[in-house]
Amino acid sequence: MRFATLPNGTPDGRLHVVSRDNARCMPSEVAMTLQAALENWDALKPDLEKEYARLNQGGGQAFDMSQALAPLPRAWQWLDGSAFDSHGALMDAAYKVKAEKIPGKPLMYQGVSDRFYSGSEDIPFPTEDDGIDVEGEFGLITTAVPMGTTDTLPHIALLVQINDWSLRKLGPPEMKTGFGWVQTKPACSVAPIALTPDELGEAWRDARVDLPLTVEIKGEKLGAPQGYDMGFGFDQLVAHAAYSRALPAGTVVGSGTVSNENCREVGSACIAERRAIEMIDTGAPEMPFLEFGDHIRMECRAKDGSPLFGEIAQTVTKA
Amino acid sequence: MRFATLPNGTPDGRLHVVSRDNARCMPSEVAMTLQAALENWDALKPDLEKEYARLNQGGGQAFDMSQALAPLPRAWQWLDGSAFDSHGALMDAAYKVKAEKIPGKPLMYQGVSDRFYSGSEDIPFPTEDDGIDVEGEFGLITTAVPMGTTDTLPHIALLVQINDWSLRKLGPPEMKTGFGWVQTKPACSVAPIALTPDELGEAWRDARVDLPLTVEIKGEKLGAPQGYDMGFGFDQLVAHAAYSRALPAGTVVGSGTVSNENCREVGSACIAERRAIEMIDTGAPEMPFLEFGDHIRMECRAKDGSPLFGEIAQTVTKA
Repeated sequence: MRFATLPNGTPDGRLHVVSRDNARCMPSEVAMTLQAALENWDALKPDLEKEYARLNQGGGQAFDMSQALAPLPRAWQWLDGSAFDSHGALMDAAYKVKAEKIPGKPLMYQGVSDRFYSGSEDIPFPTEDDGIDVEGEFGLITTAVPMGTTDTLPHIALLVQINDWSLRKLGPPEMKTGFGWVQTKPACSVAPIALTPDELGEAWRDARVDLPLTVEIKGEKLGAPQGYDMGFGFDQLVAHAAYSRALPAGTVVGSGTVSNENCREVGSACIAERRAIEMIDTGAPEMPFLEFGDHIRMECRAKDGSPLFGEIAQTVTKA
Repeated sequence: MRFATLPNGTPDGRLHVVSRDNARCMPSEVAMTLQAALENWDALKPDLEKEYARLNQGGGQAFDMSQALAPLPRAWQWLDGSAFDSHGALMDAAYKVKAEKIPGKPLMYQGVSDRFYSGSEDIPFPTEDDGIDVEGEFGLITTAVPMGTTDTLPHIALLVQINDWSLRKLGPPEMKTGFGWVQTKPACSVAPIALTPDELGEAWRDARVDLPLTVEIKGEKLGAPQGYDMGFGFDQLVAHAAYSRALPAGTVVGSGTVSNENCREVGSACIAERRAIEMIDTGAPEMPFLEFGDHIRMECRAKDGSPLFGEIAQTVTKA
């Protein structure tokens, strides 16, 4: 199934079912909002599937993804992992602020969830001096997860594609406090379509998205690393988060910046990683961080080229 | 004004106005929930004040604080500072994991906000082996704060008293990751009454609560440090948080564990600090962390002994 949320003047927007080709949509009669659907997911799923099947046969309205909000415009919890080892290794080497990993546990922090930007709106930042950067990620949305749950796969309702905006110059000092990131991590953007894992077919493998995420900065390709190389699967990220807390329905969990060992061939999903490679290879970073007016774009398509999450395509602006 | 939230079968409960002596309450006709009141605070405040004045003249029902939920049973954001320098210095010295402060900025992390425990319910934890501990704190609840706001005092709507439950043995390793705490910091408890700063009279001073917070563990007093010694006032904590994000109405911001320089006289608001003092003074910690069945209690009263936030009085249990 595929879902999008269209604006209706309320903070949570109006849930729409989207056709398999992302071309058409219709308001769901089963749930008014995605949050409501997630709070009663197992009971509502059969009826949602019927709506989806009906829409795929025809009807509905044209789906204009530039009008969509984030699939879940706000959530009660956003926990972002950093599950790609090659990203961590590069950042440690270049920035000399090492994340000291806990054996057997993923890296994770909690960030802003009261607002997720859409994939198309302009994104305001206080200043260009903070090192404005993207982080292309995959993520998931859960049903309610009781504290201590270890079999978490049944709680992964939907997958999403995220841009975790980051202010790089604030990052290392906040990291050294040990308290994690507050100023470094403003609200994230989410691509317009949330989809059930089965929409990925064989590309949903070991609780990972085995597809490349293409990231473009100012019209130039920055990279297209694939999402399979996570040191911990999404199920493990959810279990980690649920160890000492219950996760409410609609919790969003992120993979961290998608990154591959062969990043010099496939490129990167954030500017900081490109700069890290430049520092390691040539002694100095070359690629600048973003300036007001700069445009970024991210998209992940299926192996046959068909669209999945839709695209994140937006511009950085002065707050 | 004083507010409490009583259960009505919904996640946000039912907002009640509480009399100045905490003895009586009545459902607010101005707003159904505290969240709704905060989202339209400036417009609703005059009518809420009329309700409060009327209740103080008599009427209403008996207020049984053991029946109350947290004033805000869930919030879109919980940001906890660590603003008491003497606490930080002791923890650094004893635990050898130093929070490297950023000059001019407070320490802060984001934690669980989709659920705040009441001040009276039993609190479940996965195991006694994690070093179960309390943290007695003061906190505030905001109206909506636009990104970049520096004059934040007008946005501090209410003050609360918090127990920030902490799993100490998980703390230093998570801190060394630089990502902050996820497993270390389960949901917090909040004392039953949220009050406007003017209820504190002269004890609301420099955006700090100049009153002692008494913490008892298993019926024994652990300490009663006062809340004035914050290195950053609550207004500065809010401004720090709002630098690169808008804060939604109902954002809860915490002071961090209340702690004073003369902690050997006034005692501590968490077991870890007492253990740190024992380690520094005698070479080894003596006081154990909490076990299932242990009871804790926290209360802050006005200088004349009159009640303010009500009490946190609860028992640790197996999840």
